[in-house]
Amino acid sequence: MTRRFGSLAIIGLGLIGSSIARAVRAKLPDVRVVGHDADASVRDTARAIELCDVVADDAVAAVAEADLVILAVPVGRMEEAARAIAPGLAPDAIVSDVGSSKAGIAEALARALPGRTVIPAHPVAGTENSGPAAGFATLFEGRWCILTPASDAPATEVEALAAFWKALGARVETMDAAHHDMVLAVTSHLPHLIAYTIVGTASELEEVTESEVIKYSAGGFRDFTRIAASDPVMWRDVFLANKDAVLATLQRFNEDLTALQQAIRRGDGARLEDWFTRTRAIRRSIIEQGQDDAAPDFGRKH
Amino acid sequence: MTRRFGSLAIIGLGLIGSSIARAVRAKLPDVRVVGHDADASVRDTARAIELCDVVADDAVAAVAEADLVILAVPVGRMEEAARAIAPGLAPDAIVSDVGSSKAGIAEALARALPGRTVIPAHPVAGTENSGPAAGFATLFEGRWCILTPASDAPATEVEALAAFWKALGARVETMDAAHHDMVLAVTSHLPHLIAYTIVGTASELEEVTESEVIKYSAGGFRDFTRIAASDPVMWRDVFLANKDAVLATLQRFNEDLTALQQAIRRGDGARLEDWFTRTRAIRRSIIEQGQDDAAPDFGRKH
Ligand SMILES: NC(=O)c1ccc[n+]([C@@H]2O[C@H](COP(=O)([O-])OP(=O)(O)OC[C@H]3O[C@@H](n4cnc5c(N)ncnc54)[C@H](OP(=O)(O)O)[C@@H]3O)[C@@H](O)[C@H]2O)c1
Ligand SMILES: NC(=O)c1ccc[n+]([C@@H]2O[C@H](COP(=O)([O-])OP(=O)(O)OC[C@H]3O[C@@H](n4cnc5c(N)ncnc54)[C@H](OP(=O)(O)O)[C@@H]3O)[C@@H](O)[C@H]2O)c1
Repeated sequence: MTRRFGSLAIIGLGLIGSSIARAVRAKLPDVRVVGHDADASVRDTARAIELCDVVADDAVAAVAEADLVILAVPVGRMEEAARAIAPGLAPDAIVSDVGSSKAGIAEALARALPGRTVIPAHPVAGTENSGPAAGFATLFEGRWCILTPASDAPATEVEALAAFWKALGARVETMDAAHHDMVLAVTSHLPHLIAYTIVGTASELEEVTESEVIKYSAGGFRDFTRIAASDPVMWRDVFLANKDAVLATLQRFNEDLTALQQAIRRGDGARLEDWFTRTRAIRRSIIEQGQDDAAPDFGRKH
Repeated sequence: MTRRFGSLAIIGLGLIGSSIARAVRAKLPDVRVVGHDADASVRDTARAIELCDVVADDAVAAVAEADLVILAVPVGRMEEAARAIAPGLAPDAIVSDVGSSKAGIAEALARALPGRTVIPAHPVAGTENSGPAAGFATLFEGRWCILTPASDAPATEVEALAAFWKALGARVETMDAAHHDMVLAVTSHLPHLIAYTIVGTASELEEVTESEVIKYSAGGFRDFTRIAASDPVMWRDVFLANKDAVLATLQRFNEDLTALQQAIRRGDGARLEDWFTRTRAIRRSIIEQGQDDAAPDFGRKH
């Protein structure tokens, strides 16, 4: 029988950590949830909104009774968070995380927690907001959670973690960390980099004022501003941690952009129309597979 | 007193044309609306859904009684549409359009309709869908409509057209066509080009399958697929018509992207964090000014 966790510790009570707490309360009400965050004001908020059964001031105390510990801190602080819990961990506890890149985190957690069962994970779900008040119980519903266990990870524990995420509404896939980092470079990191770039570019042109950019943003620009409003620290860490895969996909993007730029310069309408026709099919598939809202304009109110 | 139009002809009954028809019915029920489209199947649909008072098979007949004619066809077909209506136009009719670029259209309409009152316009509103069934009456609500009258355009007629768009719920701004084209290159055309590029890039990598891109698109990629699903012909025409402004803003984007690429390569976290912090403010302003939904994730259902 798949192992079921009775006591969960969540380290980092931001968007993802607090969404896990809420989802566990909604879907696995028997699981005890202890939370901890390095930030005292986050702990205060978590207590005020009764996010967990207990919010511990101390990382060691937080994990004392846990059979599953999930690290939900920025990628660059995973190692520090892991070192902080190490002295308190029960012998058979599983440690997992939710970081957006995986190969670097796997190494950092192995360094910080030698001899422990570590199974890295990444729920591919989020919003542009952060902090404990931004979370919600249905965030993982229908989204994918990718597990990247090392090849020697115990299969039963991997299965237990998969069952946990499925209970929160997620679908689960397993792959190796390097492939995860390449897939996410394309589906998440490059889009964020491009969005951050274009929003910055638009706000610094001499010919067009920032106020004009804002006024006429409904022509398409506003779509990019959502992910470009995401947490700067979280995203700084992701780009530093997944540098190689991001730079590799960026190079491919640059090649394609140069080709389209050339088609525009030469007035090659057939090339443009052909490219624009192929990209339509992708959105159709995303909607068919339940990964986006079928309503026009993301279902924005008009 | 501002002139009020009693009879409107809409040429092109796609997303924008049909939205105008619906908005007029909702907001200006006394105005008679005659529609025409070059495509017989579009005319059939328009009749079946009772979009207009009359759907005319013939462009000349469509405009015979109109005091306002709006051309709502792709940018590359504006001149042809204008030539087709010319023989039927009443002497005091105003001709306007809704094309996404303006300088080239102004020239094309002046060529096709010498001696006529032409006042180009562009409602900055849309969705990724096209065709007569995709339109809706509230599309222009709270959005900006930009008028680009020539310097010698009669002020009373410009005012009448502005009043018409305001009656449909739009806010109205006036600027010259060249400035419009630079502003829209930034707020609409470049975002579409970038979105089309990245969606194409992602679908053609060897290391990551298309099915993976679709599965994990909720990490950010799916946001780009919406505008990359827009009509290929419409967008081909926009890039060909607004080539210079698009290429100019693209160059600025490329410079910024290169700078961020360098920061990633060098591990310059401070530079990344600084850039990502500045871009947040723009989204806040867009929401404050009512140009996007304040709900997280565009209000997508979770
Ligand atoms: N946001 C998304 O869309 C998304 C999606 C999937 C995965 N992820 C991943 O999930 C993780 C958390 O992201 P998030 O969006 O939830 O971030 P968040 O809302 O900013 O929350 C992170 C929290 O962790 C706290 N923290 C930092 N270092 C800590 C430590 N050593 N010990 C305990 N708490 C610590 C932070 O406190 P301070 O305020 O003091 O920094 C903050 O309260 C990241 O690794 C991210 O890559 C995010
Ligand atoms: N979509 C947006 O988000 C948006 C926003 C603002 C402005 N605009 C502008 O609005 C205009 C229309 O766009 P749309 O999205 O409404 O396009 P659409 O849904 O594709 O509709 C355009 C319609 O015009 C018809 N047409 C083409 N040439 C014609 C002609 N010479 N005479 C009569 N009808 C003709 C087309 O028929 P066929 O099927 O035979 O081509 C089609 O039914 C474009 O200039 C576009 O740049 C679009």
